[in-house]
Amino acid sequence: MSLVMPAPDSRVLDRRAAIVAALCAIVPGEGVIDEPRRLKVYESDGLTAYRQPPMVVVLPETVEQVSAVLAYCHAHGIRVVPRGAGTSLSGGALPLVDAVLLGMAKFNRILSVDYADRVAVVQPGVTNLAVTEAVSPRGFYYAPDPSSQIACTIGGNVAENSGGVHCLKYGLTTNNVLALQVVLIDGTVLRLGGGHLDAAGLDLVGLMVGSEGLLGVVTEVTVRILPRPETARALLIGFATVEGAGQCVADVIGAGIVPAGMEMMDRPAIHAAEAFVHAGYPLDVEALLIVELDGPAAECDHLVGEIAAIATRNGATTCRAAADEAERMRFWAGRKAAFPAVGRLAPDYYCMDGTIPRRRLPEVLARMRVLSEDYGLGVANVFHAGDGNLHPLILYDANRPGELARAEAFGADILRLCVEVGGVLTGEHGVGVEKRELMPVMFAAADLDQQLRVKAAFDPPSLLNPGKMFPLLHRCAEQGRVHIHGGALPHPDLPRF
Amino acid sequence: MSLVMPAPDSRVLDRRAAIVAALCAIVPGEGVIDEPRRLKVYESDGLTAYRQPPMVVVLPETVEQVSAVLAYCHAHGIRVVPRGAGTSLSGGALPLVDAVLLGMAKFNRILSVDYADRVAVVQPGVTNLAVTEAVSPRGFYYAPDPSSQIACTIGGNVAENSGGVHCLKYGLTTNNVLALQVVLIDGTVLRLGGGHLDAAGLDLVGLMVGSEGLLGVVTEVTVRILPRPETARALLIGFATVEGAGQCVADVIGAGIVPAGMEMMDRPAIHAAEAFVHAGYPLDVEALLIVELDGPAAECDHLVGEIAAIATRNGATTCRAAADEAERMRFWAGRKAAFPAVGRLAPDYYCMDGTIPRRRLPEVLARMRVLSEDYGLGVANVFHAGDGNLHPLILYDANRPGELARAEAFGADILRLCVEVGGVLTGEHGVGVEKRELMPVMFAAADLDQQLRVKAAFDPPSLLNPGKMFPLLHRCAEQGRVHIHGGALPHPDLPRF
Repeated sequence: MSLVMPAPDSRVLDRRAAIVAALCAIVPGEGVIDEPRRLKVYESDGLTAYRQPPMVVVLPETVEQVSAVLAYCHAHGIRVVPRGAGTSLSGGALPLVDAVLLGMAKFNRILSVDYADRVAVVQPGVTNLAVTEAVSPRGFYYAPDPSSQIACTIGGNVAENSGGVHCLKYGLTTNNVLALQVVLIDGTVLRLGGGHLDAAGLDLVGLMVGSEGLLGVVTEVTVRILPRPETARALLIGFATVEGAGQCVADVIGAGIVPAGMEMMDRPAIHAAEAFVHAGYPLDVEALLIVELDGPAAECDHLVGEIAAIATRNGATTCRAAADEAERMRFWAGRKAAFPAVGRLAPDYYCMDGTIPRRRLPEVLARMRVLSEDYGLGVANVFHAGDGNLHPLILYDANRPGELARAEAFGADILRLCVEVGGVLTGEHGVGVEKRELMPVMFAAADLDQQLRVKAAFDPPSLLNPGKMFPLLHRCAEQGRVHIHGGALPHPDLPRF
Repeated sequence: MSLVMPAPDSRVLDRRAAIVAALCAIVPGEGVIDEPRRLKVYESDGLTAYRQPPMVVVLPETVEQVSAVLAYCHAHGIRVVPRGAGTSLSGGALPLVDAVLLGMAKFNRILSVDYADRVAVVQPGVTNLAVTEAVSPRGFYYAPDPSSQIACTIGGNVAENSGGVHCLKYGLTTNNVLALQVVLIDGTVLRLGGGHLDAAGLDLVGLMVGSEGLLGVVTEVTVRILPRPETARALLIGFATVEGAGQCVADVIGAGIVPAGMEMMDRPAIHAAEAFVHAGYPLDVEALLIVELDGPAAECDHLVGEIAAIATRNGATTCRAAADEAERMRFWAGRKAAFPAVGRLAPDYYCMDGTIPRRRLPEVLARMRVLSEDYGLGVANVFHAGDGNLHPLILYDANRPGELARAEAFGADILRLCVEVGGVLTGEHGVGVEKRELMPVMFAAADLDQQLRVKAAFDPPSLLNPGKMFPLLHRCAEQGRVHIHGGALPHPDLPRF
């Protein structure tokens, strides 16, 4: 979406120069970026359909600098957009023309690891994979594994409550974070949580995780680390119908088995992935499940047999256990390459993220096919079936007039469908700018009001990441009336692109 | 602690009569209790050292009535103390002389169960055990299992983020609740969460769980239910030293094994329990572990062997697997009877609740023995060792002048010790009135300020459960200065006993 920028007047330029000078005083050296050419690097995140270079980028190195930057912005009413690695798929780190982009890239150290208590204290700019790499020599790992784990950072994972293949068994980020250090918009530094069980008082750690940068800037994260399971086994199961695959997922879960991961791919995704990486996937099936078990070898062997029996009962046409570690990695190579592989099917794709009750999988996939025909846009499905967490990839061509808008309307219909069948608007990608206008589909006006009051309890002037998560005009969808906060139009969170 | 009540004047009595009349209009029939004799039933919860009959009790039956009661109290500035079954061990439901006690006992229905998606929707007054009983014919159960599960209700479990033996493997209440219906102090009815994964927006469900009745009144709870594991096996392991038992716990967890429960008892607790229920416990040991494994039989058999080997390496003097289900139940009977059994050792006991890093167990138990001698009061330990969640039972005699105060001082020292070694003030019992003055040991003034701002975002006039969780005079312990909120003395949350 091309955004028209207003022509800056001299008053705006003076203000900008003053802000740049102030930030340079707080973060000396290479910590402030304000040349237009270098700002362009920051103009979007993983939701590349939206682009807007920031006013200025600041890259602090210490908590004191973060605190001073925020206190300065607070004192002068300047908006702030926090950014990790910029891999958000919902536009969570989309800059604003009049906001400081606060990049946390220099907070990239692992501060301590305690193997006996199985916790690691890391800075927010450490990548997800780097946590696992740091502890793997001792046989440990960090469980949440979003697809972007090579690039995405723990701070961004906290902001978006990121998941991944293994969250079926090991939980989302919120289940793997014990404590946080957070800087509020006025510069106050807080320590939330306590490293063990229930930390007493209100659970502000739980509230911070998934708050998409609206409540504070995370400067330190205490995460759980887990001993790497003794064994992992993977099964590749093909079905002649999506219904059979969906029922198999429901039956496995219903049998009390919690696989480490249970992923589904539909025909377009299977063919794209197989052509791309030759994973050995069967091509004569409508749906493919990759089921991974981990734990003691005795348990895995037992469960592989049980799952194979459930698959057979649900009409599986092929069922293959990886013979060795190399084959298991090949099974996953196809899944992991599915997004870039689908990217070869069309010039652009739009990755959606919604969650539904598992038993509604076949129905929702069928209705999605009808929507696909109605909109005249293809769709491929690669998703966390065990969690009911869908990732439809809508295929389109941004160069064809109107196609992006049509893809977005299709995506919104898919999310409405998720809510209609009893699901939710997200799985693990957050709301960001992408889904903010859909929030009233899921939440009543009173529910959104309460969320906004909690936001105000952290950031009364609404300077932190404005324009994300909440609908710009907080509509009361049920009653067809427009609901304005604070009595003022435009809405205080209205971003000025 | 005997509390001196002020003599009521006629203005107070008129106000009380008006409140009773208004509540009777909202909840007709048997729903309002105001005779002093019947109010006495409600004068304390599980923390019986504190007693205060409420001004009046109201027992609504519908969400509309709850909303109307709260809206009335809000409009007239009347304080409200919500109450489930009254089993709180931290005084979370302690009444106030000038507050309405809002009892949720009549919300006792299971509204729906969805086995395919493994969720049950229940009213808050349903007991913890009743959820399991309702779904057990289909082979399911509700995992959190506080010791009070026969009596305690789901609403109270949500308020206190209750745990239990099985929370080591299956998480606390917060990990098992997906959605809530909540009534705010102004009568607004909210729906929080969404029943699946991450519900988009700020995580207000996570915030509500463990909020001890300070944010809203829960009127409906959507909980996860789990298929009952195929098998359960229990091991009884005795050690000549507490250090050996503590190291065994750390090694089991460090080996990547997550037992369904791992409980420890020390010598006084072992002897008391054995004398009480003849569980077959060895009497020549200093510490006893009960370790339970659940899951597929193949997995359990494998893990029983691994744990036995770890126990032997740590110098276990006895290690016995339950031969059959009857023996397994006997192992647990002793653990479950440990509290009443310890109750026979002294006229009174005070059950503490703190959590420490597992590897500090031997050191903390040793320092607790020194404190026990210093205070001249016995202590027995029965606790969730796998979680590092201690439950020291301090033995005292309330009829001896000064002993209660000494027991409380001893308890406070234990909790300070927990925080000192890197632990937290609670495990699963909440802060309530019991630990509110200790909150500054764990949280800095800025952290408490932020919690209070979040409280105010739900309940601006601070009418809901005042006097719980937060220190009465929010002291800035580090700086030795007194910090008053809102500029007023007495503190707005100061309860008027």
